[in-house]
Amino acid sequence: MARIQNPQEFEQKRQEIINAALQLISEIGYDNLTIAHILKRLRISKGAFYHYYLSKEDLRSSIFGETNRLTDMLIGPLIDDPNLTALQKLHGFYNTIVSWKNERKNIHLSQLRGFYRPENDSFRSSMIASWIAYFSDKMTRIIKQGIREKAFKVKFNNNLSEIVINLLLGQSEKIAAVMLMALDAPEQETASISKQFHEIVHDYNQALERVLGAKPGSIHLLDPQLLMSWFEFARQAESPAAARKEFVDAVSKTGMA
Amino acid sequence: MARIQNPQEFEQKRQEIINAALQLISEIGYDNLTIAHILKRLRISKGAFYHYYLSKEDLRSSIFGETNRLTDMLIGPLIDDPNLTALQKLHGFYNTIVSWKNERKNIHLSQLRGFYRPENDSFRSSMIASWIAYFSDKMTRIIKQGIREKAFKVKFNNNLSEIVINLLLGQSEKIAAVMLMALDAPEQETASISKQFHEIVHDYNQALERVLGAKPGSIHLLDPQLLMSWFEFARQAESPAAARKEFVDAVSKTGMA
Repeated sequence: MARIQNPQEFEQKRQEIINAALQLISEIGYDNLTIAHILKRLRISKGAFYHYYLSKEDLRSSIFGETNRLTDMLIGPLIDDPNLTALQKLHGFYNTIVSWKNERKNIHLSQLRGFYRPENDSFRSSMIASWIAYFSDKMTRIIKQGIREKAFKVKFNNNLSEIVINLLLGQSEKIAAVMLMALDAPEQETASISKQFHEIVHDYNQALERVLGAKPGSIHLLDPQLLMSWFEFARQAESPAAARKEFVDAVSKTGMA
Repeated sequence: MARIQNPQEFEQKRQEIINAALQLISEIGYDNLTIAHILKRLRISKGAFYHYYLSKEDLRSSIFGETNRLTDMLIGPLIDDPNLTALQKLHGFYNTIVSWKNERKNIHLSQLRGFYRPENDSFRSSMIASWIAYFSDKMTRIIKQGIREKAFKVKFNNNLSEIVINLLLGQSEKIAAVMLMALDAPEQETASISKQFHEIVHDYNQALERVLGAKPGSIHLLDPQLLMSWFEFARQAESPAAARKEFVDAVSKTGMA
């Protein structure tokens, strides 16, 4: 007999299932994930799962929908704010996503390698497609405002929003690639990784400025220092032993050990 | 007992296996593909397959390697030609790939939908990654030459080649998306599809010019008419019945039927 459940409880349980699924997706890959894995992890019955989701695909759609909806809740008021310029909105749009990621870095970064495993290629492409579908209209609004304000000296066209989003996603992929490469090469100098992050941030900002016809230096999305702190976080999450060793080495260099 | 095989015969057999695999990848998706499928399709033994490839992954690497090597054979002389400007090389680079695709359109276009099925997401990402790894150095050489020739008014940076390639790939993905959408909506006006192709080509060329600091109008990769002919080809390959009906309708409009 079905227990009466209040909406908060329902939402909370749905979220629990999403969290467990994300964890498992990072551990074994979406392609290998079965409902049985989720049941086992959460110690719930098949019936309980199907009370919240229709299928594995329904769960995936919910993950994308939920993420987009949450981001939208944060970004929406900003896009509609009549007191902000287009450049402020572009930076706000991007920073909101970055802060959101930063607050959840224990989820996003400790699972970085898992998320980029080949068994998640399909999951990631679908997520990106869902993200583009959801946010390209909002980017279009920002671009049109920027053109009206003459901050973006370019004639509007129907593909500009996707081109801008493509650059932002290209930058993310490149950053992830550098982080993963650096995680695999613990002997690599921190200075060299930091240099690469600085270059990526600079080069992509410049490409965005050029595509949008924005003044050189007017776009400065992402802070290379933040990327370094993310990288350190990912490295420690992945290898507590290595991090401890580094700490011991650092201490021994000070002559305290 | 192993039969003595000459190198041509060996290469020919390897290519046969690649062709069968590509056909199957389009039909059922790489994720679902097993060696058994290939054996059945080609009516060869397990031993015969493993004489040519070590594994499914080895076959995949060979597909990528082979494609890149063939493209390189066509592009190599062009990149090294001292009589060509950077702009000519950029157009030559791109046109070579387009012509190569055009000559094989019975493979590429009749299998368009199959190639973009979710079970090939992983295959496509790996293919793109392999392509970028193989060709970004050559793109870098073209960009550096263009900067020396002052055709590209931009300061060189280490991510520029990848940004340019990203734009080219973004354009391809967008074109494929429009084609697939149009294939699913046979009632859509040809004029509207043609308009979208014209916009994509124009907008991405403009983005490339801006990113590279090239003169407006100096980059004109891809011909929207060619894209329309590809679309018609894909539509007919996919639905011979629909193509016949269109023909009959066209004839009946002329009053001949």
